[in-house]
Amino acid sequence: MDVLIQLGKNAVEAKFALQELSTAQKDHALYAVARALRANDSWILQENAKDIEKGEEKGMHPGLLDRLRLTSDRIEGMAEGLEQIAMLPDPIGEVLETIERPNGLRIEKRRVPMGVIGMIYESRPNVTADAFGLCFKSGNAVILKGGSDAICSNQAITKVIRDALKEEGITEDAVQLITSTDRAVAQEFMRMKAYVDLLIPRGGAGLIRSVVENSTIPVIETGTGNCHIYVDQDADLEKAVPIIINAKTQRIGVCNACESLVIHEAIKEKLLPVLAKALEKHHVEIRGDEGVQQVIGCTPASEEDYGKEYLDYIISMKTVSSVEEAIRHINRYNTRHSEAILTENKETAEKFLNQVDAACVYVNASTRFTDGFEFGFGAEIGISTQKLHARGPMGLKELTSYKYRIVGTGQIRE
Amino acid sequence: MDVLIQLGKNAVEAKFALQELSTAQKDHALYAVARALRANDSWILQENAKDIEKGEEKGMHPGLLDRLRLTSDRIEGMAEGLEQIAMLPDPIGEVLETIERPNGLRIEKRRVPMGVIGMIYESRPNVTADAFGLCFKSGNAVILKGGSDAICSNQAITKVIRDALKEEGITEDAVQLITSTDRAVAQEFMRMKAYVDLLIPRGGAGLIRSVVENSTIPVIETGTGNCHIYVDQDADLEKAVPIIINAKTQRIGVCNACESLVIHEAIKEKLLPVLAKALEKHHVEIRGDEGVQQVIGCTPASEEDYGKEYLDYIISMKTVSSVEEAIRHINRYNTRHSEAILTENKETAEKFLNQVDAACVYVNASTRFTDGFEFGFGAEIGISTQKLHARGPMGLKELTSYKYRIVGTGQIRE
Repeated sequence: MDVLIQLGKNAVEAKFALQELSTAQKDHALYAVARALRANDSWILQENAKDIEKGEEKGMHPGLLDRLRLTSDRIEGMAEGLEQIAMLPDPIGEVLETIERPNGLRIEKRRVPMGVIGMIYESRPNVTADAFGLCFKSGNAVILKGGSDAICSNQAITKVIRDALKEEGITEDAVQLITSTDRAVAQEFMRMKAYVDLLIPRGGAGLIRSVVENSTIPVIETGTGNCHIYVDQDADLEKAVPIIINAKTQRIGVCNACESLVIHEAIKEKLLPVLAKALEKHHVEIRGDEGVQQVIGCTPASEEDYGKEYLDYIISMKTVSSVEEAIRHINRYNTRHSEAILTENKETAEKFLNQVDAACVYVNASTRFTDGFEFGFGAEIGISTQKLHARGPMGLKELTSYKYRIVGTGQIRE
Repeated sequence: MDVLIQLGKNAVEAKFALQELSTAQKDHALYAVARALRANDSWILQENAKDIEKGEEKGMHPGLLDRLRLTSDRIEGMAEGLEQIAMLPDPIGEVLETIERPNGLRIEKRRVPMGVIGMIYESRPNVTADAFGLCFKSGNAVILKGGSDAICSNQAITKVIRDALKEEGITEDAVQLITSTDRAVAQEFMRMKAYVDLLIPRGGAGLIRSVVENSTIPVIETGTGNCHIYVDQDADLEKAVPIIINAKTQRIGVCNACESLVIHEAIKEKLLPVLAKALEKHHVEIRGDEGVQQVIGCTPASEEDYGKEYLDYIISMKTVSSVEEAIRHINRYNTRHSEAILTENKETAEKFLNQVDAACVYVNASTRFTDGFEFGFGAEIGISTQKLHARGPMGLKELTSYKYRIVGTGQIRE
C-alpha cells in the first residue's frame, strides 16, 4: 500500500501547486494536452490494442469491448473535449458572498478547488482524459482508478497527459493513475481520507454501491436512474407519444432514459392503443398492471419491475387514479434522478414539481435532457443522485468548494 | 432493528409533509414549541435529574455532568433559541438560478429541504431542541440519537416538542428520538441510507471518526479544530498579543480556539517576552521549539504537540523563517478549520489567504469568530471541516439541497 500513500502525498503537493495556476496557464496546458493526444494517436491505439486482445481472449461482452475500444476518431473526440473545457469559464476565485459585520470584519466567501479528487470508473479509456480535463480546469489534482481491463490504454493516456504537462512546466502529479489492478488496492484507495477530498464513482450500480459502502472519503453518488413519466388526465396526447418514445428509445443504455410510465386511468383508453403501436415500432416490450392490461395486451408487471432500471427495450406501466397516487408511486420507486409529468394543468404540474423527490423534475419534456451539456454547463462529470453538495448534472462548479476569507483590524471576540 | 426502520419510514412520510408547510406555519409551530418547553420546565428538570443521578452514581466527569445538567435558565435558553430560529428568513423555495435554453426549456434551480437528517451527538440535552429547530425551519425531518447518559432528558424534550407539534396540526414525526442506547443500534442507524439523506455527527473527535468510518449515509464532518495563528515579521505587536490571548483563552474547550502559534523568527525577540507574560497571567503552558526556547523558558514541543487539539490551557509554538514555511507547517498539521495570520503586509496576507487550506482564514483577527452567529447566520448546527457541500459555520442554508424544475412545451432530445 506504500505506493498508494505516495500517490496521495504527490496529489496533495500537486493540489497546492494547481491552485496557484492562472486561468491562462490552465487553458494553455489543456490545449497542449489535446495536441499531445493527437500526436500520440498511434501509440495510444497500439496500447489499446493490447487491452482489446486480452478482452477478446477472456470473452468480454461485445458492448463492453466497444466501450473499451479506441479509434482515431475517439482519440480526436478526447482532444476536442479538452479544448472545449479550455473554452469554459474558470470557476475558481469567484466571490460567492461578501458579509460586512458590525465589528468591522469583512468576510468573503470565495470559490476554491476541492483539492484532490479520486475517480473510480469502469473500462472506458475516454473517461481518463475527460476526468483529467474537468478536474484540472477546476484546479484539482486527480487520482484515477480505471477498470483493470483498460489498464494499458489508461497508462498510455495518462503518460501522454503527464508528459505534456511537464513540458508546460506544470506538475505532472495533476493526474496520477493507480496501476495496480488488485481489488485490495481499490479498497484501500477508498479509505485515503487523509489525502483525498472527494471520491466520485462513475459506472454501474454495483460499482457505486461498493464505493458508498466502503469509502471513508466523502462520495458523490452518480448515475442510477429509474426515471418515470406520468401522463396526467390533462395531458396533451399529441405531445405525450413523441416525448415517451424519445425518453424510452433515443438511447436505451443511459441513466436519464425513461424506464416506467405512470398513467392516469381517465386517459388510458385514448393513450394506450396509440402508444403501444409506437413502442412496438421500436421493439419495446410493455409490462403493465391490470389497468393497462384491460386496454392493451402486454406482459403483467411485477413489483420488481417498478423498481428496475432496465437499460433495455422494456418499459413498465402503472395506472393511477390521481396525481397524488402517481407522486406516491414515483417517490417510492424512483432513484431521485429525473421524473416528468405530461399535463396542461398548471396546478397539477406545480404539485408534481414540488412533491416529487428527484434531482430534475420535468413538465412536458423528455427526461433525456438531464445532462450537463443540455443544461448549458458545457461539460459533465456525472449526474448526482444524492442531495449533499451537488444534485443532478455536475459541471465544473460542482467540482469546487469554497473558503471564507476574513480580514480584520485586530478584532477579538467579547 | 425493526424499530429503527419504522423510524426511517415515519421520517420519510414526515419529510413530504414538512416540505408543504408555509413559512408562517413553521414559525408559528416554533413559537408554540418554545412555549411548551417553558410550560413543561419542571417535568423536564425532573427527568433530567434522573440522568444526573445516574451520571453521579457512575462517577461521570464534572465537566460532562455540567453539560448534561439542565436548569430553568437553560430551558429558557432552549426556548429562546427556537424563537430566534423562527425569526430567521426561510431558506426554502429560493430560486438559485434560472437557465433559458435555446430549445425553449426553462430550467429553474430551486432550494429545497435536504429531506431526512440524522444527528448523532453526545450527552447535551440542549442540542435536542436546537437540532430540531434548525432542521424544522429548513423543512427537514430529523432523527436524533443523543448520548445514552441523557436519555431521560432527551425523551422528555422530544415528547414536549412532539406534543406541541401535534397541537399545531403538524406531523409529530418531524422529530424522532432513537431511544435504544445499544451501540449496535447506533451502528445500524448510520447505514439507513434508504431513509436518511444526511448524517451530522456533533461531538468529540472519537464520535466523528466512528461516524465517518461506519456511515453509508453522506456525512458532514464537524468540529475538530487544531487552529493556528501565524505572527508574521510584519505583524503589529500591539494587535498580536490581545488577539492571541483572546483566541487561546476566551473559551478553551471550543473548536475555534487557538492551539498553536507559528512565529517568524525576525519578530520572536520582541514578541515572546511580552506574550509569555500575558499567557502566564491566564495560566497557559507554553510548549515551544528550540527557536522559542532561545528567548523564553518553556516546555520543549514534540512533533505530537503540533498535531494536537488541546482544548486546554496549553499552547504549542513553532518558529519559522518565512511565510512559506509557516503555510507549509499549518497545512501539514491543521484540521482545515480556522487559521490566522497577523501581518500589516498585504502581499504576505494575500499569500496566506490563498495558500492555507482551511474553512476560514483570517488576517488580523481572532480565530474565535468562526461561528454561525458571529458570521451573521443567526444560527449554527456545527462547523464543517470537510469541503463537500458545506465548509465552515453551517446555518439554515447549509441544511438544504436544491432541485432542478424544468418546464417545456413538448421538447424531445435530438
